[in-house]
Amino acid sequence: MSLLVVGSVALDSVRTPFGEIQEGLGGSATYFSIAAGCFTKVRLVAVVGEDFPEKHIAFLKSRGVDLRGLCRAKGKTFRWKGSYGEDMNEAKTLSTELNVFQTFRPELPSAYKDTSFVFLANIDPDLQRGVVDQIPEPYLVACDTMNYWISSKPRALKKTLSRVDILFLNEGEARQLAGRSNLLKAARHLLSMGPSTVVIKRGEYGALLFKQDTVFWSPAYPLETVRDPTGAGDSFAGGFMGYLSRRKRLSETRLRRALIYGSIMASFNVEDFSLNRLRKIRREEVEWRFRGFRALVRF
Amino acid sequence: MSLLVVGSVALDSVRTPFGEIQEGLGGSATYFSIAAGCFTKVRLVAVVGEDFPEKHIAFLKSRGVDLRGLCRAKGKTFRWKGSYGEDMNEAKTLSTELNVFQTFRPELPSAYKDTSFVFLANIDPDLQRGVVDQIPEPYLVACDTMNYWISSKPRALKKTLSRVDILFLNEGEARQLAGRSNLLKAARHLLSMGPSTVVIKRGEYGALLFKQDTVFWSPAYPLETVRDPTGAGDSFAGGFMGYLSRRKRLSETRLRRALIYGSIMASFNVEDFSLNRLRKIRREEVEWRFRGFRALVRF
Repeated sequence: MSLLVVGSVALDSVRTPFGEIQEGLGGSATYFSIAAGCFTKVRLVAVVGEDFPEKHIAFLKSRGVDLRGLCRAKGKTFRWKGSYGEDMNEAKTLSTELNVFQTFRPELPSAYKDTSFVFLANIDPDLQRGVVDQIPEPYLVACDTMNYWISSKPRALKKTLSRVDILFLNEGEARQLAGRSNLLKAARHLLSMGPSTVVIKRGEYGALLFKQDTVFWSPAYPLETVRDPTGAGDSFAGGFMGYLSRRKRLSETRLRRALIYGSIMASFNVEDFSLNRLRKIRREEVEWRFRGFRALVRF
Repeated sequence: MSLLVVGSVALDSVRTPFGEIQEGLGGSATYFSIAAGCFTKVRLVAVVGEDFPEKHIAFLKSRGVDLRGLCRAKGKTFRWKGSYGEDMNEAKTLSTELNVFQTFRPELPSAYKDTSFVFLANIDPDLQRGVVDQIPEPYLVACDTMNYWISSKPRALKKTLSRVDILFLNEGEARQLAGRSNLLKAARHLLSMGPSTVVIKRGEYGALLFKQDTVFWSPAYPLETVRDPTGAGDSFAGGFMGYLSRRKRLSETRLRRALIYGSIMASFNVEDFSLNRLRKIRREEVEWRFRGFRALVRF
């Protein structure tokens, strides 16, 4: 089935205790596309500036990413600078230059309008809804969000959630958006806001998938090397949606496996800076790690 | 097989956002015995003061706990006062009165010397080793410890670890004792210090069981009601050791199931203050929750 992502393509400068990178390829739509690209072709909607290096375009194309929705606008590409301390759980943003991203209004090429699976990465909830409006019959809509939108545009976010099937967010954001500190109660509340599935990401503690009557717990793959967590959440969503979009079927088992594939792609992503690990990934490595997840929880 | 615990029997005063209790029954050996009591009889070694209520003695006896090793000393019983904030992950100690526990030197009744399974709760590592010295042929020795001993008696603790088969500790303590922030590296280092199995507890994020070549991940049971986390670690160890001690066999599968039973007993324990939930537990509730854990991770 067709899978579309709307989000950012960026140049990230990141420092962690294990090294640093200057203006590496980044952005939510990029991480998502490359991770999902292990399973399917991805249609990308994003904007870059005149300075965006051709080599990155060539790389995305080489991975089969459909770039008809990538707009090159006057000005500079979105840039983010951040650093991580020893615990690697939270990024400290050093600077954000929105540049061409500031006036980004996602316009879908007409060839994208028959898209079945849609992932709205973490952008303004009004823009997220604007994307859904452009797709007459989506089979499944998923979105991510963050604390910034939860506190600055709660009403717009709620409107968007009423149009969404799967909501991805991290643990702190789930508690904030639901206004409940107990995670089970928070998830129930989020399910009452529209989505039929809520995925709560917990970094090195794994992820949870909530539906009305079931909970599924995915571990995080224990890693000896975590070099750069940037893009983990979007690689996670990419693995999840990439796997899921291969068929029009949303059984409990397929959703659970999608969560595992999300966890797998996130686990690869954090092993190196930028997309350096995801670039090299082979399909059989993904399956080895899938079996690794099974071994991790079997009892 | 016989199972012995050495630790504290205490009177705890605890406040959480969900209520409070004054001088409720507590202590590591108490939580351990009652949790393990779901699976087997427990031999207890601890000390209480002259003021220790008879009703608690009667309760422990009614649960089949062998109290020949419970010494009643001159003075007052060990008391702890603590409170928990909204996140419930860390206790704030308001006061600790060691009282008779200050001069506690565990002496095993001769009838205990043939014990097969030994659990050394979180006490001075020199005293822990003193207990092992009194048992000629233990089949398996497990111990817990804490940040206080890691920083104040590192050498004594290391000597004790060289005599221990299974080490229980929480995540922060594992990193501290191993001097490594990556949990996989920390666990490997701890395994090199003596124990053949390391169990790392992560509260609401579950627990990990490390052996030389394998890792097992137990989730934590998602709960809507967490009233009081006091004693979770000792109930965990109780469920783990209680299950394990039923047979002299330490296969990977039995260790994994022991971790699940530990998680189950901890999950019941935190649902109410003191031992109020564990008191009421029925064996079939434990098995229902065991099936709940299976459903939680199946994919």
